[in-house]
Amino acid sequence: MSVAARLASFASTATPSESALQIMRLSLFDWAAVAIAGREEPVARILRDVEGSSGGPADASVVGVTGKQPAKIAALINGATSHSLDYDDTHFDHIGHPSVAVIPAALALAEKTQATGPDLLEAALIGAEASVAAGVWLGRSHYQAGFHQTATAGAFGATIAAAKLLYLNAKQIEHALALVSTRASGLKAQFGTMGKPLNAGIASSNGVEAALLAAAGMTSDPAALDGSQGFAETHAGMADTTAFDGLGDDWRMERVSYKFHACCHGLHAMLEAVRDVQVDPSAIRKVVIHTHPRWLTVCNQPAPQTGLEAKFSFRFVVALALYDHDTGALETYSDHICRDPDLVRLRDKVTVQEDASLTEVQARVELTFDNESSVLNGDLDQNLMIAEKKDRLRHKAQSLFGPDLAEHLHRTIEAGDVDGLAAVLRGA
Amino acid sequence: MSVAARLASFASTATPSESALQIMRLSLFDWAAVAIAGREEPVARILRDVEGSSGGPADASVVGVTGKQPAKIAALINGATSHSLDYDDTHFDHIGHPSVAVIPAALALAEKTQATGPDLLEAALIGAEASVAAGVWLGRSHYQAGFHQTATAGAFGATIAAAKLLYLNAKQIEHALALVSTRASGLKAQFGTMGKPLNAGIASSNGVEAALLAAAGMTSDPAALDGSQGFAETHAGMADTTAFDGLGDDWRMERVSYKFHACCHGLHAMLEAVRDVQVDPSAIRKVVIHTHPRWLTVCNQPAPQTGLEAKFSFRFVVALALYDHDTGALETYSDHICRDPDLVRLRDKVTVQEDASLTEVQARVELTFDNESSVLNGDLDQNLMIAEKKDRLRHKAQSLFGPDLAEHLHRTIEAGDVDGLAAVLRGA
Repeated sequence: MSVAARLASFASTATPSESALQIMRLSLFDWAAVAIAGREEPVARILRDVEGSSGGPADASVVGVTGKQPAKIAALINGATSHSLDYDDTHFDHIGHPSVAVIPAALALAEKTQATGPDLLEAALIGAEASVAAGVWLGRSHYQAGFHQTATAGAFGATIAAAKLLYLNAKQIEHALALVSTRASGLKAQFGTMGKPLNAGIASSNGVEAALLAAAGMTSDPAALDGSQGFAETHAGMADTTAFDGLGDDWRMERVSYKFHACCHGLHAMLEAVRDVQVDPSAIRKVVIHTHPRWLTVCNQPAPQTGLEAKFSFRFVVALALYDHDTGALETYSDHICRDPDLVRLRDKVTVQEDASLTEVQARVELTFDNESSVLNGDLDQNLMIAEKKDRLRHKAQSLFGPDLAEHLHRTIEAGDVDGLAAVLRGA
Repeated sequence: MSVAARLASFASTATPSESALQIMRLSLFDWAAVAIAGREEPVARILRDVEGSSGGPADASVVGVTGKQPAKIAALINGATSHSLDYDDTHFDHIGHPSVAVIPAALALAEKTQATGPDLLEAALIGAEASVAAGVWLGRSHYQAGFHQTATAGAFGATIAAAKLLYLNAKQIEHALALVSTRASGLKAQFGTMGKPLNAGIASSNGVEAALLAAAGMTSDPAALDGSQGFAETHAGMADTTAFDGLGDDWRMERVSYKFHACCHGLHAMLEAVRDVQVDPSAIRKVVIHTHPRWLTVCNQPAPQTGLEAKFSFRFVVALALYDHDTGALETYSDHICRDPDLVRLRDKVTVQEDASLTEVQARVELTFDNESSVLNGDLDQNLMIAEKKDRLRHKAQSLFGPDLAEHLHRTIEAGDVDGLAAVLRGA
C-alpha cells in the first residue's frame, strides 16, 4: 500500500482516543494563545497587509482582522502568526511543530463548512497525528539535509485535516496528498528570519488548497509520495514505513511537548529542573548545568546583551529562573534585564557542561551553596498529567496577554465553540 | 556575491537587446495562444471553479473568467492553464518551459500596476532570462534527481518578473528570491497528471507572492539559495555559477524553442525534417527515423490506438506529416485518425533507430521509394529567422482557434496593449 493510501485509510477510519482528544484540546488552546500573542510580530503584520485585506469569500477568520477571509489565506496568515514567536507545541518524533501547520488549516475549513467543535478537534487531531507520522517517515535524514519538517510533513497533515472537514473519501485524500507532495516545501535555511514562521503558514495554506482542489476533482498520482522520484526520494527522506505501524492505535500526539518558557527549547529541560526549587539565589556560590552536547551550539550565549540573546543563554536564563522571574512571559526577555546586577552576578557563577549521557530533552543542574549542594533533574519526556498541563498552559496564556482574555479563550475552547474561537481570534 | 545578489543585480541593471525583446513578444503571443487553447482542460476548469470565482481585489485577468482576480490567483490559474496542453515554449539549457511560470506573474502584476506594454515585455524577458540562468545553475543533476525546473527555476524567474513590475530595489529582490527559495518546488513525479501544469501555476503564484511580501517589508536570508543547506544544496543542484556568466549580455531567451506541433517534443526534430518535403506518400516503400537514444523511451509508441498515444509515436506522426495533416492542431490527434488505413499502412513501413551522434534536438529521416531515396535532416537548434518564427506561431494560433481570434491576439500584442491582451484572455 502506498504511503498516500495508508494515510488516507487512517484519515478515513481512525477513531481518536479520549485522551488524545483531550491533548488536542490543549494544543488548540495553546495554539490560539501563541497566535494571539504573535499578532504584532512583523511577519504577521506584513502578511495581514498583503493578504488579509483582500476581500474574497468570507470563509474563515484571521488573527487580528475584523472580516473573514478565503480559507487558504486564513490558513497562511494564522500559520505564520502562530509560529512567529516559536512558542508553539513541538513533537520530537516529528522533528517539528505540529499545531502551527495543521490547526490553521483545520480551523479555516471548520469555519468554512460550519463544522462543530468536536469535528474541528477530531480533524485537527487526525491531521496532526498524520503530520507526526509523516515526520517520522521522512526522518532525521530529511531534517539533517536541510528540510523543515514543520513545513514539509506539516503540509501533509494540514491536507488531511482539511480533507476530513471536507468529507473527502479515501481516494480523494490520496489525490490531495499527491497534489500537496509537489509543493510541500520549507528549508531550515530560513531559520532566524521571517521565512521560518512563513514556512508554517505556507504548509497550512497548501494543505487547504490541495484538499479543495481534490474535492473539486483534481487528480494526481498517489505514488508521488513514496514512488520513484517521489517526495521522500527527492527530499532525503528515510522513507521509514514503520512510521505508520500502530497509526490510529497509539496516538503520538499524546506525547506532544508544550513550551512553558518563552525562550529557546534547548533551555526548557534546565528550567523544568529548577522550577520547584526554593532557594535564596544570592546565597548560591556555583551553578553547573549539564546538557546534551547539541545545545552548546544553539543556546549557550555566555553574556547576553539583548532580550533576543537572552533567549539563547543557559547562564542568564537559569539566573532569571532562580530569581523567580516569569520565564513564560515574552516581556521578561528585555534588553534592560540583561544588565540587572543581581542577575549578572549569578550568571557569572554558572558553568555549562555537555553530557552525552543526557538526551536532548534532559538536563541536570547542580546548585552549590556554602555548606551544601543539590542536584536537580529536568526531563521534558517526563509527561505531566493532563490536568497539570492544562494549568500550566492557562498560566502561560495569562503571562502572554492577561487573565481576562486567557480565561475567556479557555472557556470558549472547553465549550467546543468554533464561532466563539474565531471571534476571539478576529478581535485579538 | 550570492546567487540572490547576482540575480538581483541583473534584474536591476539589465538592458535587454532589441532582438531578445522581439523574441519575448513572440513568447508572449505563443503563451497567450496556448493558454486560450487550454482553457477547457480539466486542470484549468477545476482551478477556475475553486479559485477563480473568489472575488477579492480585481488585480488581474484569468483566462476564461469575466471578472478580475487577485494577482496571485490569476498567476496560479493562468500558469496551469497555459501549461495544460504542454504546447508552450521550451528552453533546453533551462531544462524547462520558461514562459508558463514567468509570463502569468508578469502579466498579473502588469495589470495590477497598470504597467505599459514595453514594461510588461521587459519584466517578462528579464524574469524568463533569470529563470533560464537559474535552470542552468541547478543543472542536469537537479532534473535527474526528480525536480521539475519549469517550476523550481521558474519560481525564481517569476519572482524577478514580479519584482520588476513592483519596482523593487536590488536588496528587496534579494529578499524576495530568498523567500521564494523556501517554497520553490515541483516534482517530475507529477508528469502525466494534472500536477504537471499545476506546478507551473504554483511557481508563478509563488513568485507573485514573494515579490509582494518583499515589497511590504518581509525579509529572509539571501544566502538561502546558495548557502549552506540552501536551495541548491538541498535540491541536488549542481550550483554551477558559470550559469551567470554573461547574464545580461548574451540573452539565452533568444534561443528559446517554440512548439509548432501538438505532440511530444521528442518528435519535433523529425517533423521539421519532413516539413518541406513534397512526396506522394503512397509511393513510399520505407521510412527510417534516426533519433537521439533518449527519445526511444519517451515517444516511440509503435501502433497508437488513441489520440493521446499518437502524440508519442514516431511511426504514426511521421505518417501524419507525410500525408499533410496539420500536426499543429490539437484535434488532429484523435482516436479515430489512428485507424485511418492509409496512415496505418505508412506507419507500418517506419523503423525508428537510435543514433547517439545526434543531439536531442536533431533527427534524420530516410525516405525510400522504388527507385530513389532521400535523407532529410531536422535540427531544432537551427534557428529560424524571427519573421519565420512569427509566421509559424501565427499559423499555430490559427490552427488552435481559428484566424479571427489569432489575428486579433497578434495585433493586440504587437501594439503592446496590456489591457487589450487581458480582455482577450478574460473573453476567451
